[in-house]
Amino acid sequence: MILNSNYANLQDSYLFRTIAQKVNAYREANPDAALIRLGIGDVTRPLAPIVVEAMQKAAGELGAAETFRGYDDDGIGYLSLRTAIANYYGAKGVALETDEIIVSDGAKSDLGNLLEIFGDDAVSLIPDPVYPAYVDTNIMNGRKVIYTDGNEENGFLPMPDASVKADIIYICSPNNPTGAVYNREQLKAWVDYANDIGAVIFFDAAYEAFVTDKSLPTSIFDIDGARTCAIEICSLSKIAGFTGVRCGYTIVPRELVDASGKSLLAMWRRRQTTKFNGVSYITQRGAEAVFSPEGLAQCKANVAYYLENTKIIGEALTSMGIWYRGGDNSPYIWFKAPNGQGSWDYFDYLLNEKSLVGTPGAGFGKNGDGFLRLTGFGTRENTLEAAKRLKD
Amino acid sequence: MILNSNYANLQDSYLFRTIAQKVNAYREANPDAALIRLGIGDVTRPLAPIVVEAMQKAAGELGAAETFRGYDDDGIGYLSLRTAIANYYGAKGVALETDEIIVSDGAKSDLGNLLEIFGDDAVSLIPDPVYPAYVDTNIMNGRKVIYTDGNEENGFLPMPDASVKADIIYICSPNNPTGAVYNREQLKAWVDYANDIGAVIFFDAAYEAFVTDKSLPTSIFDIDGARTCAIEICSLSKIAGFTGVRCGYTIVPRELVDASGKSLLAMWRRRQTTKFNGVSYITQRGAEAVFSPEGLAQCKANVAYYLENTKIIGEALTSMGIWYRGGDNSPYIWFKAPNGQGSWDYFDYLLNEKSLVGTPGAGFGKNGDGFLRLTGFGTRENTLEAAKRLKD
Repeated sequence: MILNSNYANLQDSYLFRTIAQKVNAYREANPDAALIRLGIGDVTRPLAPIVVEAMQKAAGELGAAETFRGYDDDGIGYLSLRTAIANYYGAKGVALETDEIIVSDGAKSDLGNLLEIFGDDAVSLIPDPVYPAYVDTNIMNGRKVIYTDGNEENGFLPMPDASVKADIIYICSPNNPTGAVYNREQLKAWVDYANDIGAVIFFDAAYEAFVTDKSLPTSIFDIDGARTCAIEICSLSKIAGFTGVRCGYTIVPRELVDASGKSLLAMWRRRQTTKFNGVSYITQRGAEAVFSPEGLAQCKANVAYYLENTKIIGEALTSMGIWYRGGDNSPYIWFKAPNGQGSWDYFDYLLNEKSLVGTPGAGFGKNGDGFLRLTGFGTRENTLEAAKRLKD
Repeated sequence: MILNSNYANLQDSYLFRTIAQKVNAYREANPDAALIRLGIGDVTRPLAPIVVEAMQKAAGELGAAETFRGYDDDGIGYLSLRTAIANYYGAKGVALETDEIIVSDGAKSDLGNLLEIFGDDAVSLIPDPVYPAYVDTNIMNGRKVIYTDGNEENGFLPMPDASVKADIIYICSPNNPTGAVYNREQLKAWVDYANDIGAVIFFDAAYEAFVTDKSLPTSIFDIDGARTCAIEICSLSKIAGFTGVRCGYTIVPRELVDASGKSLLAMWRRRQTTKFNGVSYITQRGAEAVFSPEGLAQCKANVAYYLENTKIIGEALTSMGIWYRGGDNSPYIWFKAPNGQGSWDYFDYLLNEKSLVGTPGAGFGKNGDGFLRLTGFGTRENTLEAAKRLKD
């Protein structure tokens, strides 16, 4: 058997699995402890009522001969959903054609699969710290990865270095794990750099719904020049609590072509129509409801709830004199472990002494060591209790 | 930009898109024609009531805080669904561990993505004619493909040739497009061959539910020796009409390891947990309902309906003295175009003269030329009318 030898270069265990193992061991040893989990970025608020109704109705349609539907044609998403997404962008001032939007089962799938349309010798530039799947999917491909350093000095918002050459540039803003958000000028510098060197930006916009500061861009396509150098990957997981429902979309502008005129949109469509068969009709109807005026109002109430949670944690950290990023415009708080402790040491301390689960920054890259991530995705009660335990 | 140059080797247009273009052109020219579509293998019967109920209930659970669920842990499927699938296999006499079953959004995704765990120099052996995505996904990878010939002489059931060396072997039984089904001895020969040369069989079991002849195997794992050389890919699209709901699963036995002991199950799990985030909770609850006794009874009634359709088409062809395969144990009928016509010529004739859409065999490989595929997935009324038009 000839297997993919690049898998041997992956770290043995995915970050969140290691955390789960530690948490399980703690639970077995302390069955009565009131554990609070603000580690993995999973939502807790129920789906918006209008979304549930739409999905129940869609399931019913599939149960009747007159309204039954099979394959979603090319598997790129129903036009009605792609129109709803285009309108959502339109309301932000970003004009998209419905054909530039390809619906999928989530941003994680698209971020991994997009690499397939690039040559094996394309080099990826990835910020450190970052969402671990960016790096792992590149390693699986045997692809060369170079890093930009995020740190306290640059507020975990690394900027381009004209002397560095890359082919694929990962940007996640609002950032996972740091909660940092690029402003318009900063993103413009990345777009200019990408256009200069002929690179493609993968813009991960999964947390766009948490941006409340109107001066901050929530789409790369709000930046001049992005249509010739960027792909935007987004998800309904965080805006609408779809982590268990699975729906995302990727935007590839028509103008994104290589020197010979090859269209990346055409290549991505070919990839998806050949290796994917579309998203559940039920899910798509639910997603469409998210982007209705009533749906957005219901979803935004959940987002506001989570943002209030991050504010509560942020205030606790401020009162302790601890440096952090995020806490506004993001569901994440990224903070410095007290007394120069390493991430895993402080993670263990919080777990074992405070029954509080965070995510060790070291799991997101070397520059993450010494930091932890907490999320605003808990319940209010748990978040208040977590803030209290932190301060104690 | 450094793009994947292998995409340039793909045929411009996917088979079913070409057909759609021809059909659309015909419809524009003949807006009043009563077109019957027995081309693409999409189902038409509504979902089983128990499945609809389960999905509506699951959607409701996501709408309440107490029953809300987010990420499906590792994204490999809820244990309850994997247990239901293991029990379905158990009832056929095939013992599987739940950990060997990885749930996904469909067989098409898995068949394409599985290639990632193999080295780039692994050679694929693919039957001709065959489901076009097998070949296209290999071309996208830049992988070397060799073919085995299916033809009238071998009943479109090619057998292994000991002088041929390959690393990945595709078998689809019951076959798409030919409807031919391997018997136990034939599959045993493939398993022995794969074990001898250290190859891995991709066994596409998407049509297993259509096998009514109890002597025919419906899983590769019903064959001795398969656990050291085979991966089975299956789907709920055909057994339960899930083409628009999206759920499938892949079975990788623990014993499937390379010479150095590397586990393909571990690699596939790593691929899925890194590049995929699981299937909708709603879908998984629906899938679980499929495998309940009541669900299987309801689904089998639909399968019987489709099989009756294929019988009607088969009888029409028999009365015309036309050679065909399939028509029993398969939803497909694969027949020879009259008077030595080419596939596309006869396709055009049926479309333009009979308002009947089939699928040209040439679209499935060079050996398919001169043949057409019809499906039993239409309504009874359309199928009876199609049989009449064929005979006229």
